Amino acid sequence: MESESKSKPSSYAQAGVDIHKAESFLTRLKVSARRDGHRRLWRGSGGYASVYPIQGDSAVALSTDGVGTKLLLAIEQDRYDTIGIDLVAMCVNDLLCVGATPSVFLDYYAMGALDERVSDLLMEGIIEGCDRASMLLVGGETAEMPDLYDKGHFDLAGFAVGTVKRDSLITGDELKGGERIIGVSSTGIHSNGLSLARKLIKEDSPLRAEMLTPTAIYTKPVVRIFSEYPGIIKGLAHITGGGWTNITRPKEALGYVIDKHLPVPEIFKHLGTTIEIEEMYKTFNMGVGLCVMADAEEVEHIISIFKACDFEAMEIGEVTADGPALIIRNAPGAEGEIFIHTKAT
Amino acid sequence: MESESKSKPSSYAQAGVDIHKAESFLTRLKVSARRDGHRRLWRGSGGYASVYPIQGDSAVALSTDGVGTKLLLAIEQDRYDTIGIDLVAMCVNDLLCVGATPSVFLDYYAMGALDERVSDLLMEGIIEGCDRASMLLVGGETAEMPDLYDKGHFDLAGFAVGTVKRDSLITGDELKGGERIIGVSSTGIHSNGLSLARKLIKEDSPLRAEMLTPTAIYTKPVVRIFSEYPGIIKGLAHITGGGWTNITRPKEALGYVIDKHLPVPEIFKHLGTTIEIEEMYKTFNMGVGLCVMADAEEVEHIISIFKACDFEAMEIGEVTADGPALIIRNAPGAEGEIFIHTKAT
Repeated sequence: MESESKSKPSSYAQAGVDIHKAESFLTRLKVSARRDGHRRLWRGSGGYASVYPIQGDSAVALSTDGVGTKLLLAIEQDRYDTIGIDLVAMCVNDLLCVGATPSVFLDYYAMGALDERVSDLLMEGIIEGCDRASMLLVGGETAEMPDLYDKGHFDLAGFAVGTVKRDSLITGDELKGGERIIGVSSTGIHSNGLSLARKLIKEDSPLRAEMLTPTAIYTKPVVRIFSEYPGIIKGLAHITGGGWTNITRPKEALGYVIDKHLPVPEIFKHLGTTIEIEEMYKTFNMGVGLCVMADAEEVEHIISIFKACDFEAMEIGEVTADGPALIIRNAPGAEGEIFIHTKAT
Repeated sequence: MESESKSKPSSYAQAGVDIHKAESFLTRLKVSARRDGHRRLWRGSGGYASVYPIQGDSAVALSTDGVGTKLLLAIEQDRYDTIGIDLVAMCVNDLLCVGATPSVFLDYYAMGALDERVSDLLMEGIIEGCDRASMLLVGGETAEMPDLYDKGHFDLAGFAVGTVKRDSLITGDELKGGERIIGVSSTGIHSNGLSLARKLIKEDSPLRAEMLTPTAIYTKPVVRIFSEYPGIIKGLAHITGGGWTNITRPKEALGYVIDKHLPVPEIFKHLGTTIEIEEMYKTFNMGVGLCVMADAEEVEHIISIFKACDFEAMEIGEVTADGPALIIRNAPGAEGEIFIHTKAT
């Protein structure tokens, strides 16, 4: 139940984004797109990335994403050099979640009229993002559409490709309950929940600039774990649209109990003064950009590699056989337990 | 030199699209994106598609594109079921040009607010396009951005992946001069030059509806040639943005002389009353959606396969060693010879 507010939206739906309508659209789409050939895929389109076999035990993993209305913040602040990092981050963090090693990236960039300063800065960000993500920018499309985009407006979409061997694929199937959940720090709000946050944080607030901090890219530590400790990761969850409900994506039938917490960035505390705590966790990353699931004896290795790559990481909870559910205990600022009944698909 | 017109644009630039600015942006981008790793690519980002090796002699070919302002025509005519076919076509026809067999597709779909009727029809088109292109739709992103897109507006980007073996790659390097050029019919204006055409063809003209005819998808005949006559295609050119200058893309240092012509669709005759003939050929497909280059003795095989797949196809000219140039002789409605000095890159 959401409380009504005349002046400020207190949920994503009130900010003009109808997640339920989008979900029912995606369900219909999945049915109508289904073909026999989909059986060839090692991972279907429901997960973080699709995995398509190429030869023998080699496959490519594919993901696409945009940066949502974070780009309106870039326009408002006349700051174009980092939003490309977000674009790459949103795509590449999804790829990692199926066990893929990122390799190449393509972008789609559409605008009203090409402004050379703006487009050079945008591309600088995409290239920086690719460097951070260990990917090559190998193609793209630049489209001028004067009658579709207002002057100064633009959109960006990214396509990321990674490679994965059959026995390195992370499917989540191995999760049984009993595995530990490691939370890895985000760099702030990342690239989701911005339609709502933009409406709640005033234009003169110092948090407004902070909202543009680029999304963390987890390639380096994750690929290092893939190579130094192959097979120890049993589930990976990129915390993006849908907030912490993403934690359950590796295997939705299970339970996920979170009872320890990384520091919650200031921006979420501020947003929490208007938005109900459950809605906060269902919308934002709350300081956790990635969750890694592994057996207890591997936790230390995993944490040490994230720390060596300048991320904060700690054990924050446990996978249980009692699902489908996401249970958040001892959440900063929340009383009691937050129980989110997630669906099993 | 372009003639000035106060009322109607007679070139792409006057329609608000600055191709030279876009080209100089892309040149700067290519330089700044360059990394050592790009040497691994079998085909770089300058061509129709990038080719990235996966294992042994297997690689993936990657392309991305949008439909440009053709989607504004779809909105204007409240006809949403075919623009997705254009999206797939623009991507997949590029993939074919490097010798790849199309396999999977992802879409990015952004809009102001999700309208269930419109989005279902758009996806119907994308799925129909994938069926025609022999691809599976394996993923996508749907983004609601109420503050970026006007009510009823949306954008679409596509990402296509194909597979190619090293010895099936079409690089254009084998072209020496002397090869024949086969022109394959388009289905009309396809998805380029629409910003200009929309301004020249009145809203009450019957040609307005015709402009929405979906772009031809050449997968079936081209893949059939790949499999029945491997190696005979030495160059493939998808005639898209830049019109017939695309004919020279397989190997820009050479000359390309066109002296026979497929029928020119009515829409181009109409546009030709306002636009100079050279500008027409530099902007539109003029009835030729794809050019195939092969030795004289293979022409008949190639034409027969296109005809079996319901395309018109005929020998329209020849590759010569005298380049870089595109020479168009006996063009319907043009006097003398059109000489387009193309750049060698």
